[in-house]
Amino acid sequence: MKPSYADVETAARRIASHAHVTPVLRSHSLDALAGCAIAFKCENFQRVGAFKFRGACNAVWALSDDAARRGVATHSSGNHGAALALAAQTRGIAAHVVVPEGAVAAKVAAIRNYGATLRVCAPTLAARDEAAARITRESGATLVHPFTDPNVIAGQGTVALELLRETGELDALIAPIGGGGLIGGSAITAKGIFPEIHIFAAEPEGAADAFESMRRGERVTDIVPNTICDGLRATFGQVNFELLREYDVQVLPVSDAETIAAMRLIFERMKIVVEPSSAVVLAAILRHRDHFAGRRVGAILSGGNVDLDAMPWRS
Amino acid sequence: MKPSYADVETAARRIASHAHVTPVLRSHSLDALAGCAIAFKCENFQRVGAFKFRGACNAVWALSDDAARRGVATHSSGNHGAALALAAQTRGIAAHVVVPEGAVAAKVAAIRNYGATLRVCAPTLAARDEAAARITRESGATLVHPFTDPNVIAGQGTVALELLRETGELDALIAPIGGGGLIGGSAITAKGIFPEIHIFAAEPEGAADAFESMRRGERVTDIVPNTICDGLRATFGQVNFELLREYDVQVLPVSDAETIAAMRLIFERMKIVVEPSSAVVLAAILRHRDHFAGRRVGAILSGGNVDLDAMPWRS
Repeated sequence: MKPSYADVETAARRIASHAHVTPVLRSHSLDALAGCAIAFKCENFQRVGAFKFRGACNAVWALSDDAARRGVATHSSGNHGAALALAAQTRGIAAHVVVPEGAVAAKVAAIRNYGATLRVCAPTLAARDEAAARITRESGATLVHPFTDPNVIAGQGTVALELLRETGELDALIAPIGGGGLIGGSAITAKGIFPEIHIFAAEPEGAADAFESMRRGERVTDIVPNTICDGLRATFGQVNFELLREYDVQVLPVSDAETIAAMRLIFERMKIVVEPSSAVVLAAILRHRDHFAGRRVGAILSGGNVDLDAMPWRS
Repeated sequence: MKPSYADVETAARRIASHAHVTPVLRSHSLDALAGCAIAFKCENFQRVGAFKFRGACNAVWALSDDAARRGVATHSSGNHGAALALAAQTRGIAAHVVVPEGAVAAKVAAIRNYGATLRVCAPTLAARDEAAARITRESGATLVHPFTDPNVIAGQGTVALELLRETGELDALIAPIGGGGLIGGSAITAKGIFPEIHIFAAEPEGAADAFESMRRGERVTDIVPNTICDGLRATFGQVNFELLREYDVQVLPVSDAETIAAMRLIFERMKIVVEPSSAVVLAAILRHRDHFAGRRVGAILSGGNVDLDAMPWRS
């Protein structure tokens, strides 16, 4: 089920008292470098450090009281798990998060700190789905998928809604693509407000399932991701693929080296902390210059949860 | 000559079309950790990446047309040199910056990029003063001292002016202390608006000339600085000492280890890039908790020009 622009507006009202309105920042020096005028929407300042809180919060608050009482569940070892845990906390309900054995300890600790019940499973897709299915069967919890759930997609759309309400009309909007929840919500929203706007998705070359899917005209699901962008390794969802086609989203690939250079530029010039999965948008603007030259561009910086002990330019 | 609160208001009007109004950010998680409510004034987002642009800009635009035509000069291998160079550029006049041999190449390059004429001298105080004196003698340029110049102090006061206009009344204000330009301007301004406010200065233990001066009641000038805070190594000025006494500023020492831990907290929790010389304010709030418990605190994050190749927690 695909959400509509009206669903995004509903989501914005639903999450308003829980999510931050994040700042829109500009940099003269990055504009000069890129040859266009970029408005950066800074979701690294969002709660949980990433836009993921919006979709999770919308999904949690869209539940009936009866369903909410039975809690929510998901599988994620990253930002979505932490986001759903905090969203559940805002409604005072239980969250169950299935985490694979061997997940990053700091991320697992964050999920636990937000009050979720952790379920550890073997690190396979089958074990993960089995564990999630068992939780929902036993507890009656509602499964909230990280990027195919329509309430999640509508919630992520509120990023673009805030951005475009602040900037006014833009020529182009670019967001990172992993599973496709953020770019899907962004496309619905931006085209709903400004039908002429061009939508771009920035994708690591090492996890180019969206690029390949658009090129072949059918969803590609067999790519094994190999990229520094830990937030963009998920396999692109079916509803997300349909949204990209419907809204004519163009996928722009970038190398990890380009992403790391862009991330460093953002630290140096903008003085903000972003994760590699965010920096892909600047990398794409700098590499695919012709698409952006002289234009008014919105760029979504999706999050700031980076390992400060392992800055990528120190490798 | 000591500037007044009226001088700060004049400075604010003078630099308004050149300097950024920087954001005030808050962090629930840092508030919980510190046990008080902190409004962080983020001068890391200022032009040149530090508050220094304000004072330099005010000094440059306070000149008569006749004096301006002959340019400005200073000695600084750090943020003030770059700030004066950019400020001179905004008025289309010459800037001469005396830099010691062996100064950090990246900082020297930044000063040059802003269009200043560099004069390299031997790395001694005598050579530096001699070089600066020769420039002003030969060119007629006006010397703009980094922290004793009254226009510089008044310009730095505009940080506190913006902060307090945004937050309303606060119980305490804390800023870093090096030469004393920022804290001097902050004290004049904050006491001018809210006479009951308490002013604190955060100082590295390894460069505790202000702390020692206040303790002994006379200015101490023989301390050899040894601290990671490269922006706070200057020897405290005489007029700055007088301002600290006049406004009853309390100096709070912090160790470099505390500063590094605080800097990491700011990166992780606030997702912004600050330099060690900024992080001292959070380090002081966390160490000297009793001064701040339960209070409304303004904290000035002075700049974000950090060497990304050498993050201090990686040593």
